[in-house]
Amino acid sequence: MNYTVITGASSGIGYEAALAFAARGKNIIAVARREDKLNELKKAISSIYPEVDVVTITADLSISGNVYSFYDSLKPYEIETFINNAGFGNFDSVADQNLSKIQSMLRLNIESLTVLSSLFVRDYENVAGTQLINVSSGGGYTIVADAVTYCGTKFYVSAFTEGLAQELSSKGAHMKAKVLAPAATETEFAQRSFDVNEFEYNGTVPQYHTAKEMAQFMLDLYDSDKVVGIVNGETYEFSLVDPLYPYAKRSRK
Amino acid sequence: MNYTVITGASSGIGYEAALAFAARGKNIIAVARREDKLNELKKAISSIYPEVDVVTITADLSISGNVYSFYDSLKPYEIETFINNAGFGNFDSVADQNLSKIQSMLRLNIESLTVLSSLFVRDYENVAGTQLINVSSGGGYTIVADAVTYCGTKFYVSAFTEGLAQELSSKGAHMKAKVLAPAATETEFAQRSFDVNEFEYNGTVPQYHTAKEMAQFMLDLYDSDKVVGIVNGETYEFSLVDPLYPYAKRSRK
Repeated sequence: MNYTVITGASSGIGYEAALAFAARGKNIIAVARREDKLNELKKAISSIYPEVDVVTITADLSISGNVYSFYDSLKPYEIETFINNAGFGNFDSVADQNLSKIQSMLRLNIESLTVLSSLFVRDYENVAGTQLINVSSGGGYTIVADAVTYCGTKFYVSAFTEGLAQELSSKGAHMKAKVLAPAATETEFAQRSFDVNEFEYNGTVPQYHTAKEMAQFMLDLYDSDKVVGIVNGETYEFSLVDPLYPYAKRSRK
Repeated sequence: MNYTVITGASSGIGYEAALAFAARGKNIIAVARREDKLNELKKAISSIYPEVDVVTITADLSISGNVYSFYDSLKPYEIETFINNAGFGNFDSVADQNLSKIQSMLRLNIESLTVLSSLFVRDYENVAGTQLINVSSGGGYTIVADAVTYCGTKFYVSAFTEGLAQELSSKGAHMKAKVLAPAATETEFAQRSFDVNEFEYNGTVPQYHTAKEMAQFMLDLYDSDKVVGIVNGETYEFSLVDPLYPYAKRSRK
């Protein structure tokens, strides 16, 4: 009984990814802050794929203390795929940004992803068929004006995950680590980034993918031997490519 | 009475940078965990440059709660240059890394640097002659094997600071933001990264700069109009260059 863990599964790409992996017959462990949304997801999956086991866990992973207890709660399950999808953005100048929001963003996008990735690698790197998929952004390869700090977090995610992928492959580990880098996607991302209650992508954002499309791209990345799945910010085409950042075998500092 | 603030000033590049800025007649605010080392620095500066005022502040900036109180303690001083130099590394595979050390590293290298940069920009971006210098690493542009998480933190520093430099320049702010990216430098960096009590660079590391050389490069960056001062990891030449990461004026996510 192998499970796919998806953080931030209550909406957006995480929600659609849970449905997409369930469609592959994978059992799902869905994690997020909002219990009602997780129950909705569980209901949706159970009605279409009754054979799939869905476990829901309510946790706010932007709070450091919750990260280890969340990982501990996974002990009864055998994990096949771990998807660090939880994360949020912020649009503001550095001078104007709300530093308490920024602290939560750093804790969630960077610290929680690092701890969960490290624990998963420690426990499963030698298990055949395991994958770690970390959701970065086009902003993890190109800095976007007015989202400088958010992009910093995604540069971290891209470099950390690409480096980990190289490390696992050079030690001959079974686990694969991969980076998904979406561009604009129709989710609650814009609402949370701009601190607004409603945001209509249609007519506001010149080009974007739906969350369902991105979940399909995530499956394409899952099926591929490539390390990075990235949406081109100009053409909105999705490509599967080798690591994009330079990697040096040895040196110090 | 303008001050240069230097974090991590008790040793290595920070210590030498304090001496180098004092040689320019700049008053110094030196911050670090080790009071005895700061007193040593203050004595050294006062004996050579008696006209320079040296303020020492003892603080561990890897502890989030200390960061705001440290910044508050700067209120009586007019700051001209703020150098986020405090930081440390870690050499280990992701599977083996000590997660409590990693958490401190993320808090110091990323969170504290972000909060201090943001507060400094907020208060001083329109003051002529002000500069923010964030110390990154060659590892903030090239991922180095066995230092994947450390390099992630430095990719963050490079992207955040380059992005901030672009933001300040596009809003016509007076402040300049700059990135210093050393390669191997003879400091306590290797000791702390490998968790050993002694480390001899000479004979172990094929090529490296002394901390004094790096402090000189920092002054070159300070004097220049360029945003990035980077040591080439092959030739060990230092160059002053424009931002290295792509920057997009507008888009979403």
